[in-house]
Amino acid sequence: MADNSTANGSANSTVKEEDMLKRNIEDVSNDRDNVKRASNYRPVIVPACAPKIHYSLLKTGLCYDVRMRYHAKIYTSYFEYIDPHPEDPRRIYRIYKILAENGLVDDPTLSGVDDIGNLMVKIPVREATDEEILQVHTPEHLKFISKTTNMTREQLLKETEGGDSVYFNNDSYLSARLSCGGAIEACKAVVEGRVKNALAVVRPPGHHAEPEVAGGFCLFSNVAVAAQNILKNYPESVRRIMVLDWDIHHGNGTQKAFYNDDRVLYVSLHRYELGKYYPGTIHGNYDQTGEGKGEGFNCNIPWSCGGVGDAEYIWAFEQVVIPMGREFQPDLVIISSGFDAADGDTIGQCHVTPSCYGHMTHMLKSLAQGNLCVVLEGGYNLDSIAKSALRVAKVLIGEPPEELPNPTKQVKPEAIETIETVIQTQSKYWKCFKRTHANDGCNFQEKVTETSSTKNFPLQHAIRQEQLQMLTDEFKYLTLPLLKMDLPKETVICSPNIYDSEAIIICVHDTPGIWAQRNRLTGTIDPSTSIIVDNAIDFIKWANSRKYGVIDVNIPQSLLEQDNYSAVITAQEVVTFLWDNYLKYFPSLLKVAFIGIGDAHSGIVHLLGHRDTRNVVKAAISFVDNRPLKSLVPLVDESLGDWYFKNSLIFASTDHPCWGTDGNDNKKPRKKFGRVLKCETDGMNNIIEERFEESTDFILDSFEEWSDSE
Amino acid sequence: MADNSTANGSANSTVKEEDMLKRNIEDVSNDRDNVKRASNYRPVIVPACAPKIHYSLLKTGLCYDVRMRYHAKIYTSYFEYIDPHPEDPRRIYRIYKILAENGLVDDPTLSGVDDIGNLMVKIPVREATDEEILQVHTPEHLKFISKTTNMTREQLLKETEGGDSVYFNNDSYLSARLSCGGAIEACKAVVEGRVKNALAVVRPPGHHAEPEVAGGFCLFSNVAVAAQNILKNYPESVRRIMVLDWDIHHGNGTQKAFYNDDRVLYVSLHRYELGKYYPGTIHGNYDQTGEGKGEGFNCNIPWSCGGVGDAEYIWAFEQVVIPMGREFQPDLVIISSGFDAADGDTIGQCHVTPSCYGHMTHMLKSLAQGNLCVVLEGGYNLDSIAKSALRVAKVLIGEPPEELPNPTKQVKPEAIETIETVIQTQSKYWKCFKRTHANDGCNFQEKVTETSSTKNFPLQHAIRQEQLQMLTDEFKYLTLPLLKMDLPKETVICSPNIYDSEAIIICVHDTPGIWAQRNRLTGTIDPSTSIIVDNAIDFIKWANSRKYGVIDVNIPQSLLEQDNYSAVITAQEVVTFLWDNYLKYFPSLLKVAFIGIGDAHSGIVHLLGHRDTRNVVKAAISFVDNRPLKSLVPLVDESLGDWYFKNSLIFASTDHPCWGTDGNDNKKPRKKFGRVLKCETDGMNNIIEERFEESTDFILDSFEEWSDSE
Repeated sequence: MADNSTANGSANSTVKEEDMLKRNIEDVSNDRDNVKRASNYRPVIVPACAPKIHYSLLKTGLCYDVRMRYHAKIYTSYFEYIDPHPEDPRRIYRIYKILAENGLVDDPTLSGVDDIGNLMVKIPVREATDEEILQVHTPEHLKFISKTTNMTREQLLKETEGGDSVYFNNDSYLSARLSCGGAIEACKAVVEGRVKNALAVVRPPGHHAEPEVAGGFCLFSNVAVAAQNILKNYPESVRRIMVLDWDIHHGNGTQKAFYNDDRVLYVSLHRYELGKYYPGTIHGNYDQTGEGKGEGFNCNIPWSCGGVGDAEYIWAFEQVVIPMGREFQPDLVIISSGFDAADGDTIGQCHVTPSCYGHMTHMLKSLAQGNLCVVLEGGYNLDSIAKSALRVAKVLIGEPPEELPNPTKQVKPEAIETIETVIQTQSKYWKCFKRTHANDGCNFQEKVTETSSTKNFPLQHAIRQEQLQMLTDEFKYLTLPLLKMDLPKETVICSPNIYDSEAIIICVHDTPGIWAQRNRLTGTIDPSTSIIVDNAIDFIKWANSRKYGVIDVNIPQSLLEQDNYSAVITAQEVVTFLWDNYLKYFPSLLKVAFIGIGDAHSGIVHLLGHRDTRNVVKAAISFVDNRPLKSLVPLVDESLGDWYFKNSLIFASTDHPCWGTDGNDNKKPRKKFGRVLKCETDGMNNIIEERFEESTDFILDSFEEWSDSE
Repeated sequence: MADNSTANGSANSTVKEEDMLKRNIEDVSNDRDNVKRASNYRPVIVPACAPKIHYSLLKTGLCYDVRMRYHAKIYTSYFEYIDPHPEDPRRIYRIYKILAENGLVDDPTLSGVDDIGNLMVKIPVREATDEEILQVHTPEHLKFISKTTNMTREQLLKETEGGDSVYFNNDSYLSARLSCGGAIEACKAVVEGRVKNALAVVRPPGHHAEPEVAGGFCLFSNVAVAAQNILKNYPESVRRIMVLDWDIHHGNGTQKAFYNDDRVLYVSLHRYELGKYYPGTIHGNYDQTGEGKGEGFNCNIPWSCGGVGDAEYIWAFEQVVIPMGREFQPDLVIISSGFDAADGDTIGQCHVTPSCYGHMTHMLKSLAQGNLCVVLEGGYNLDSIAKSALRVAKVLIGEPPEELPNPTKQVKPEAIETIETVIQTQSKYWKCFKRTHANDGCNFQEKVTETSSTKNFPLQHAIRQEQLQMLTDEFKYLTLPLLKMDLPKETVICSPNIYDSEAIIICVHDTPGIWAQRNRLTGTIDPSTSIIVDNAIDFIKWANSRKYGVIDVNIPQSLLEQDNYSAVITAQEVVTFLWDNYLKYFPSLLKVAFIGIGDAHSGIVHLLGHRDTRNVVKAAISFVDNRPLKSLVPLVDESLGDWYFKNSLIFASTDHPCWGTDGNDNKKPRKKFGRVLKCETDGMNNIIEERFEESTDFILDSFEEWSDSE
């Protein structure tokens, strides 16, 4: 289309051929105007076209069958009756019910009638055939499930015991075949163009069922079986399928079924938490990207914590899911639609709202020409799944998604980290991530490991050198040796007057940050447009101006450690060393004020708890921005805790976790963290700018030098 | 909704109250199953709900009225008849026609009947009232336009001459009032919930008409007038309106109408080209963000070049338009829908496909609960506007957008740069841009200007220091003084044997790049996890190993200049200086090979054209990655051109512009640029890795040292 309309060149030339003919009719109006200026003149309109087609909208398909409610856990106690198993037969009933209550489905008796009105069309559910199931599952697995039909109650209970969180009754096999068949029929209806999209309200769910074994409430891998059979039976119209799994659990079964297959792109958002969250394997991690032909066609988005919600899911969709889907160009999109990430689900413990499910469905409609099939997986709060499914259904029939209840909510830092990692990993395979995110087009971690080669050297060393040079040139500072510690010689720098000063300011900081501009084209950092921002320097100059002694400690950070554990330890060792080997022996020393910046501040807190420094240390000020707070452990004397609280100022950024993640509650950190104050800004540089004067005044007061501070 | 479903805690507990009652009916099946195991048993279903509402979908509204075709340019020549003015009465006719031809509108006679079928509903067009128009325009302007009704042909032609690309006939006033009234009525119908969304096929367009003057084919500012009146008349239901203007021209009129207003967020994507593109003022630049109350509620996305298309528009929508819109939470979205960015429009010269218009409409439907009103602006290729409008209409009635013809196309670097600048600028006002893009939450340029303060020092200086130290420590290198040049003393470093070596390798490079990891939480660069990558060092070590003399030149780059003009000049001065003051006088010098990296390489090319160096210079190798090529200007001798081509190797990245922007054609750079070779990779580091050996071999050959190269 693009091409042929470019072909016929200019706006004017294009119209000529066909239109010159029509001009005498069409433009009679204009010509006359110019002659008669009859503003109330009406042109003679001659029939100009008969509609080539009568355009009609397809309906949305719906799969539902009461027989899928027969699969249920056998009650072995009254308790189980009162507090039933979460994978409860009413799950599909409640979804069907809310669709009827809202008039999307016309079925007052909720009996699953065939004609369900003008908005949706019933897709009859049938049992999946052995042949279909065997496209994914092993004969042994099929055989085992089928046997449950004729087992005794005792056998059933035994198998239920033995399995990985699955249960069986004599109807499990029937329900599982119907659930699987429903998924297949729903996809078929979409692919054959009988419906514009479809919703399969089926159970038992499928995405945990692996080719050879059931698990996680799943008997057959419904979506996988459907996808396999569609690919097999519609080779012309369906070459690629995208499976988007927003169930809060990783779909290990689906992933396994297509791990070596480049025809199916499996994308899953789920809680992972270092593999501790169900299904509790590493298969759900971000680095599981597929094997062989399937490499690059598996994408896990593993949340590192619970409590994620709309902001995180929308972010993931906009940054990863949709761009990737657009590039993959699927012919069909299947949503493995568990609703256990929904707000209110106590198993998932996340906060995805019904509107957000609507938005995600709306975004996915923009792929595969809208060939979209939603298949139910998990989700255990009956209210939540009903409300969520309703919004999904509304978007399917063509309604716009409703507004998110809290669209300005910020994405959790942990989630941003997860997404960045995923993008970093997938940028190997997907163009859409190259331009903007790759570091010089290559994976960062890989490069870092090359740093042994002398070609690369750590930036922080260069920066510290620069500081050292500046301070020695300008103020004749010296380096203070750290005996028997394997650290760069420029780690500790001090003013020449240090030995005989009465008052010393000790500044313990991380390597200064950089204001860098990412090269917009390559994504690399362009040093020519980057600046080092030395936050400590203002304090040092202030101290110089007051003739205080100054010790400036730069804590180098480990290149590979993300958690900066090593930096924290180093800081503790260095600061303690300074006390034990220098400060204690300075003859005329009366007053010390500590200034900590970043992770390094924990070195100060450590010292104040492990030595009794109260006779000289008057103030401990720290800027932690978003870094973790460090609590004082009063080893020498219980009263140290109160003393620390009185003599410290800890500045945390406005959105530091310590204020509570929701931000709106007035959580206060415990006393042991010192006197923690909330800044109005965030970012280390902004915080220090904001509180510089307050800090220096605090030091002057603690030094009892009010007079000067006037 | 979110809240109340969280309220009733666990999946199980929620169901109890209401459901325990229904259990005996609902779950009779399960209970019985366990007893009877009758797999063919059917449960007794009792009517459980009557639909509370009968859900029905609203139609899409359509404004069209033949009378808007009366406004037309008065023909003053046969030529004007053959090749009419682009703002042609048939524009609205052709759009209406294609809707009918595709069955969206049922109107075989195309006469604008009232009943147009099941998919769309006619919204009657009426003339805007004076009161409505005066909400935006000055009485003088209204008076002037109204006068055109009774002007003589001569007066009309005179006013047409005098205006800023507008024309008048005696029906212009009527058409303009209808066009404006149509926009108002379309918005009203959406706001009052009579239609789910609307398409106003109106002309003359409006977005260039400023409160006091007509311009750019526009008489009244239709969209602005509509928005003002909606805000005035629906204060309860409509508090905020987002106007998205995808006409290829900046909507100066609309912007001006709301520049001080925080109730209307105006977002415009348009060609800008340093203000040269129509309307040719700086008002369309990214830094025009609103004034007073309106500050932060105006967002211009100014393309720096023509030829943008789907990739760029989708990128802009995903990165800027939608996140911003979501945060703004409009109650109504109005699209100022010019179709002159469409593929085939010779005025816009861009390549937005009909499908892309569909996708953009689909994305905007996710805002404001789908309250969306599309109002026609420009667009002059009758085929293109018809096809584009058709896709927009299809999405409005609820169809999914069709797939983009070329979804894997990469976003133009210039566009990425534009978007980044816009995000950088808007991050002051919009939370959604803070987390990921802002440098430590603050605008970079602002910070750079502070670099005078000693608190900040340029990173490149620190990096060069580090290099210097390393080379002096390891190889006893020295600095080579640059007399009378205002450059850092470490700019030129050389090996100790330089004075009496036969062969010298001269490496002229930009400040080395950095592999940095953006701190995922703050968006700043964390030096502790960043590495300097010195590309030159491998060449230096290679040269050392062969006992060659080495001169290493680091060209500092200007902190503020983006184009690196100053770096290029510096490189030329330094390299020429080296030749004139050192190399010429080295007694035993026989062979020189140049290695250029980045912008700095232009220094080499400059020298080779301005001096005759052929007796000693044997090879000139440059790695330009994506930087501009530098052509040799043979000042001393014409034949220098051929010589340079024979003795040079210029390595450009795989996607260097010199290979043609579309990439698929085999464009070859001219000879004067030297022998330019296409690398398989991109990114300076990758290129050098890829071609290191080829380069050194080339030098050995040119030095006639094959034997050693074995």
